[in-house]
Amino acid sequence: MNTNAASKNAVILLSGGLDSATTLGIAHAAGYICHALSFDYGQRHQREIAAAAALARHYHLARHVTMTIDLRAFGGSALTADIPVPKDHLGHAAPTESQIPITYVPARNTVFLAFALAFAETVAAFDIFLGVNAVDYSGYPDCRPEFVHAFERVANLGTRAGVEAAAAGGAEAFRIHAPLVNLSKADIIRQGLALGVPYHLTHSCYDPTADGLSCGHCDSCLLRLAGFRDAGTADPIPYAP
Amino acid sequence: MNTNAASKNAVILLSGGLDSATTLGIAHAAGYICHALSFDYGQRHQREIAAAAALARHYHLARHVTMTIDLRAFGGSALTADIPVPKDHLGHAAPTESQIPITYVPARNTVFLAFALAFAETVAAFDIFLGVNAVDYSGYPDCRPEFVHAFERVANLGTRAGVEAAAAGGAEAFRIHAPLVNLSKADIIRQGLALGVPYHLTHSCYDPTADGLSCGHCDSCLLRLAGFRDAGTADPIPYAP
Repeated sequence: MNTNAASKNAVILLSGGLDSATTLGIAHAAGYICHALSFDYGQRHQREIAAAAALARHYHLARHVTMTIDLRAFGGSALTADIPVPKDHLGHAAPTESQIPITYVPARNTVFLAFALAFAETVAAFDIFLGVNAVDYSGYPDCRPEFVHAFERVANLGTRAGVEAAAAGGAEAFRIHAPLVNLSKADIIRQGLALGVPYHLTHSCYDPTADGLSCGHCDSCLLRLAGFRDAGTADPIPYAP
Repeated sequence: MNTNAASKNAVILLSGGLDSATTLGIAHAAGYICHALSFDYGQRHQREIAAAAALARHYHLARHVTMTIDLRAFGGSALTADIPVPKDHLGHAAPTESQIPITYVPARNTVFLAFALAFAETVAAFDIFLGVNAVDYSGYPDCRPEFVHAFERVANLGTRAGVEAAAAGGAEAFRIHAPLVNLSKADIIRQGLALGVPYHLTHSCYDPTADGLSCGHCDSCLLRLAGFRDAGTADPIPYAP
């Protein structure tokens, strides 16, 4: 962990889920001045946008921007289109050729990181945090370390700040931090609990009830519940009966 | 030029300007089924959105999506914020350390390419065209070949289609085409005229009049006018008196 982060700006992609909340907790604990970015992208689980706002308040963030984008204009995923969310089949209810879940949203993290980069450059931040994880395997291609590294190169080549940093000898450059990428869900939760991450404010369910209760049966709920179980503690959020 | 493009889908980033119109003309002439993507991103020059729509009609495109995004939420550029557009000083009215114009918009082409990638994956296109140019030097870091190549890598690592293509032996993969990147403005115009690109429908001005007439004095107008002059022909659009 970088211990020289005091007074450095950072942008954190904050979905309102368990992983992004832990990532925010890590950046906050490291001393970064945290600017959070959330998206209203036509996802089914609008409940998570409220969770992101609650987390931003909890951490007294320097800034929290919620960007509205219409990925539904393109279609193509269970999270944004009219495809049933898979239930009680952790992993791959309807495997595709490459074992990528049907909840995959085309190029989602590329879009999110692109906006995070624009935000970062505007607030003079070189550090971007995102909570992707490639262990408790979500199966999403844009959650892998090689994708994160490739985007880091785009960030440094495609921005004024990156070009000026390179011209100045590379002392500073964009870094895409993915501190959870090699952790199990249980390890993520253990680390978050140690940092005091308020998991009661987070939301993970792909298919909550009208009251905002988590279903307990979608991929995201199953992964979350197994993670708390493996970490030896109870999930503090309520689930639908 | 790929002559095996017949019946292949492509996504073209279409701003409505001279360069993107020429790029569309090139993709169209190569036989691609063209899907265009434009952005309403809070730019001053809303006039160019109308130009993009006129070009889409002219070419009878398979699809034209205009995505609304609010880059003003971040601030930071003459095109989206309240900074005067430089006039009559082609290049660098107010040079920055790295000679990047103040009309630079943070990470703009990264954001645009990210959406183009999402669109491409949704319509099963592997070919993305954008009209960036690094010769008649715009000074934008995200108009350079190395940036385009870096984004191509992101596209192939961060999408289901890219991962499945790699698993299938790499016969197909995302390609980011920047056919104008090494052409002078005059050469772009010559090529476009040879392809019958309807330049009278395009718009380039950063600061048009209320009636939509081009100012003739901003960087974009000066580059355009010099390009037509060097190509030995007249610019068919009207300018403010």
